[in-house]
Amino acid sequence: MERTICAAAFLLVVLLSCHATAAAANGRWPPPTLATHYSFSSARQVMAAAGSSKGAAEHVPSMVQYETRWYTQRLDHFNVAPASYGTFQQRYLVNDTFWGGKNAPIFLYAGNEGDVELFANNTGFMWEVAPRFGAMLVFVEHRYYGASMPFGSAKAAFKDASTLGYLTTTQAIADLATLVLSLKANLSAPVAPVLAFGGSYGGMLAAWMRLKYPHIVMGAVASSAPILSFYGLADPYAFYDAVTKDFKSESENCYDVLRRSWDELDNALATDAGRAELNRKFKMCDGKVETIPDLLDTAVIYGAMMDYPTSSGFLTPLPAYPVLSMCRAIDDNPTSSSGADDDVLSRVREAINVYYNHTGAAACFGAAEDDDPYGMFSGWNWQAHTEMVLMTSAVRDGAVLPPSPFNLTELLDEGRNYTGLPPRPFWIETEFGGFDIANVLRRSASNILFFNGLRDPWSTGGYVSILFSYLQSTEEHFDSIIALVEPQGAHHVDLRFSNKDDPDWLKQVRRKETRIIARWLSQYYSDEGISA
Amino acid sequence: MERTICAAAFLLVVLLSCHATAAAANGRWPPPTLATHYSFSSARQVMAAAGSSKGAAEHVPSMVQYETRWYTQRLDHFNVAPASYGTFQQRYLVNDTFWGGKNAPIFLYAGNEGDVELFANNTGFMWEVAPRFGAMLVFVEHRYYGASMPFGSAKAAFKDASTLGYLTTTQAIADLATLVLSLKANLSAPVAPVLAFGGSYGGMLAAWMRLKYPHIVMGAVASSAPILSFYGLADPYAFYDAVTKDFKSESENCYDVLRRSWDELDNALATDAGRAELNRKFKMCDGKVETIPDLLDTAVIYGAMMDYPTSSGFLTPLPAYPVLSMCRAIDDNPTSSSGADDDVLSRVREAINVYYNHTGAAACFGAAEDDDPYGMFSGWNWQAHTEMVLMTSAVRDGAVLPPSPFNLTELLDEGRNYTGLPPRPFWIETEFGGFDIANVLRRSASNILFFNGLRDPWSTGGYVSILFSYLQSTEEHFDSIIALVEPQGAHHVDLRFSNKDDPDWLKQVRRKETRIIARWLSQYYSDEGISA
Repeated sequence: MERTICAAAFLLVVLLSCHATAAAANGRWPPPTLATHYSFSSARQVMAAAGSSKGAAEHVPSMVQYETRWYTQRLDHFNVAPASYGTFQQRYLVNDTFWGGKNAPIFLYAGNEGDVELFANNTGFMWEVAPRFGAMLVFVEHRYYGASMPFGSAKAAFKDASTLGYLTTTQAIADLATLVLSLKANLSAPVAPVLAFGGSYGGMLAAWMRLKYPHIVMGAVASSAPILSFYGLADPYAFYDAVTKDFKSESENCYDVLRRSWDELDNALATDAGRAELNRKFKMCDGKVETIPDLLDTAVIYGAMMDYPTSSGFLTPLPAYPVLSMCRAIDDNPTSSSGADDDVLSRVREAINVYYNHTGAAACFGAAEDDDPYGMFSGWNWQAHTEMVLMTSAVRDGAVLPPSPFNLTELLDEGRNYTGLPPRPFWIETEFGGFDIANVLRRSASNILFFNGLRDPWSTGGYVSILFSYLQSTEEHFDSIIALVEPQGAHHVDLRFSNKDDPDWLKQVRRKETRIIARWLSQYYSDEGISA
Repeated sequence: MERTICAAAFLLVVLLSCHATAAAANGRWPPPTLATHYSFSSARQVMAAAGSSKGAAEHVPSMVQYETRWYTQRLDHFNVAPASYGTFQQRYLVNDTFWGGKNAPIFLYAGNEGDVELFANNTGFMWEVAPRFGAMLVFVEHRYYGASMPFGSAKAAFKDASTLGYLTTTQAIADLATLVLSLKANLSAPVAPVLAFGGSYGGMLAAWMRLKYPHIVMGAVASSAPILSFYGLADPYAFYDAVTKDFKSESENCYDVLRRSWDELDNALATDAGRAELNRKFKMCDGKVETIPDLLDTAVIYGAMMDYPTSSGFLTPLPAYPVLSMCRAIDDNPTSSSGADDDVLSRVREAINVYYNHTGAAACFGAAEDDDPYGMFSGWNWQAHTEMVLMTSAVRDGAVLPPSPFNLTELLDEGRNYTGLPPRPFWIETEFGGFDIANVLRRSASNILFFNGLRDPWSTGGYVSILFSYLQSTEEHFDSIIALVEPQGAHHVDLRFSNKDDPDWLKQVRRKETRIIARWLSQYYSDEGISA
């Protein structure tokens, strides 16, 4: 069970991978930043002995059974030049075991940046509520990820900007629209309510799907969707402020040790003696001590994001509350009682060990053999450097990570260097909005549930502007745009499989979400004048 | 004044041009149908002496003053292939005489298929209400029309499918979105409410703009917008049923004469003697008697659409209530009292004479010198054969026009022949909806005013499913999706300049629309917590 609940964490990892790898790519100690380089290997440093993350994610509950289907998808929905009529095979996974027939709901997972099987295997909430609602489950793979490659192969799809140019968010959402209509036509179920789900980027897609195609999906459950992490909407320092807050909340000393460690690492790496000492302290499998800051960077950021209340097993096996565990390792450095090293770097090593070696099976730190087993990074890098220009890269003085002032010009230059094309930092806001969003959604939308856990740094770009309005509001329409916020929650923790050790607040979140879905469906059937 | 109020009729003419020209293109007596051939010359047969229609449209009230501006527009908003970064100069017209400053409204005309000056010069309602609301007026030209040509020129833009492919509705609406945001940024007016207006296709754009970009336009006045004239939504026979009803409503005999005339024309054209007789009866300038059915076809269809309560002067000068006038000419054939011809064809000639020779200045029927002075047909033909596959072509037995059964396959074949590409008859519904539209709009939209006049055959594709709900509904949200329906109204008559002879119902319509706009703006300012 441990391993099966963890992979949902993966849903958001790619968003953050961009941050975590800046350090290595620049060959110095820069802060994590979004739009930098292609290689993400540093973000996937794992203990050599821990096995691949793919292996960990492959253990799924037996209820997860689906049929793989293919949809002939149009290359470009929005123009009618001859090239746009090209097609590719889009993969989607279907489970109709629980489906109640033509008027029963279809739960649609808006696949995000990776192999769709990952999302099907790990979005436990959908599987667990499907029987109650008699829902069909459909997980649609995002174009340019997994097996859904235009131009016949990943190699051809990723050839250059002329082939990659069709990898955009609007195209992906239109893919969902056309696929759903085709599916419903084939099922002879034109009235069946379709409810979109998604976590992280998938949550953005789900919410935007409801905004743009309300005639196709009657609601959206958008978990940890940073729809406001764009220029001018969210504070670009907020993301790392949240990471810092997570560590500070466990221990001021822990925060202080981590904060001081960057200079110490920097100094040690600057001399041969320092590097030898680092190699001894950190037990690097390959002696590449220059990757230690990346290991730490990843552990800090991912630890905060995946600060789940139960142990998890994706990327690397993690204990429950990994931030607390890392801080305990720092505060109570076990080597200190043995009279061994008791300095900042030794304490940091212990924190890293919690993140990468929870099982205790590994003897040294090293790189994973396959640094992108789910084919996420190439596609996401393209998106992050063109349209999905998330403004989450700045780190202020006093953060748990090294400071880095916000610099839009640099960010856009990085994008331009990466793709050879100008990034479009305002496009997402133009297309999907963001400015004055509470009023816009209030007057022009309904049935969107935004979940955000405040332990999750991505919550800083979430729809939390009408915090807790759900229970307080009495106005029906506004009421159906729901900001469900949990102070204890991490990244889309609500969508994970339930666990016997789940805390009450998490059980409560899932119960609330279930009630909200029930209410939406009930209203839908009432509007349509049919019984479910 | 007569000439100034008429050109608003033009807004919709192109939609119908597709119908009116089928006959000539096929060289037989087919019914008017949508997707056929390129040449629209037959649709613009005018009396040689009547002067060009462009001349007529150029007379506009002195209050119509605007500055011409240009916006550097992106070629393709929805993909990021290098070619999409191409730009073109998009024209827009601005009047800020009445503007009340940064929080005051911006009234945005969503330019449809033609030179934007036409719409600026003839959408009188916007000019007349702007002072009351302190509104800036902005008329945006649709890409591939007027002076807004991608690729540098009309010739280059219309070269082939690879250049024409960027002429789509979704691109045009995204053009509006980017242009408006840029304009507001330059005005330092981020909160200024933007209200979209449009008639006919422009009305579709306005409504869809509100649906898709509610964060950019806070409402839409969509006049005579046939958003439901697509496959499976509207009865494909309804359009010509409405035309028939218009004529029948004036006189059963008129309807009967017109209906019988097609066979008589057909028979006459089949023999040399018949053709000679036709030439004598109809006084053709050039002897081309084979165009007579087109003249009649156009007169019947356009007469119904432009069945305005005051005289008008676009395309050809028309009397008030042209259907009534044509029917009077048929019923009371003036030549009969002189002992001259008093047969079906002579009566039909008199009806044609009303339509093409209202001024009485012309001596013969002939073709206009320039059959497309506003550059509408090339662009609209492309759109109509690719995405805007309007299902309005079928004519049932007993209609005022020759019968033509609905045949989707034929319609699509025509599109394929025209563009070399498969038409996309389901795309508009996929992108903008239509199925179950009342419930969808009720739950997911607000502030859309759909005006439809029931004399207008395009009303058969309008949003009339919740007829008259405006005054009857008490529910605020639903209330803001308004179907304003006037039995006496013709095609977007509400948007025309007012006239001292306007009937009370028309004055009432405009007063209602003004009140609705005032209510929307008031609510907007209240939501924003600012005073206008």
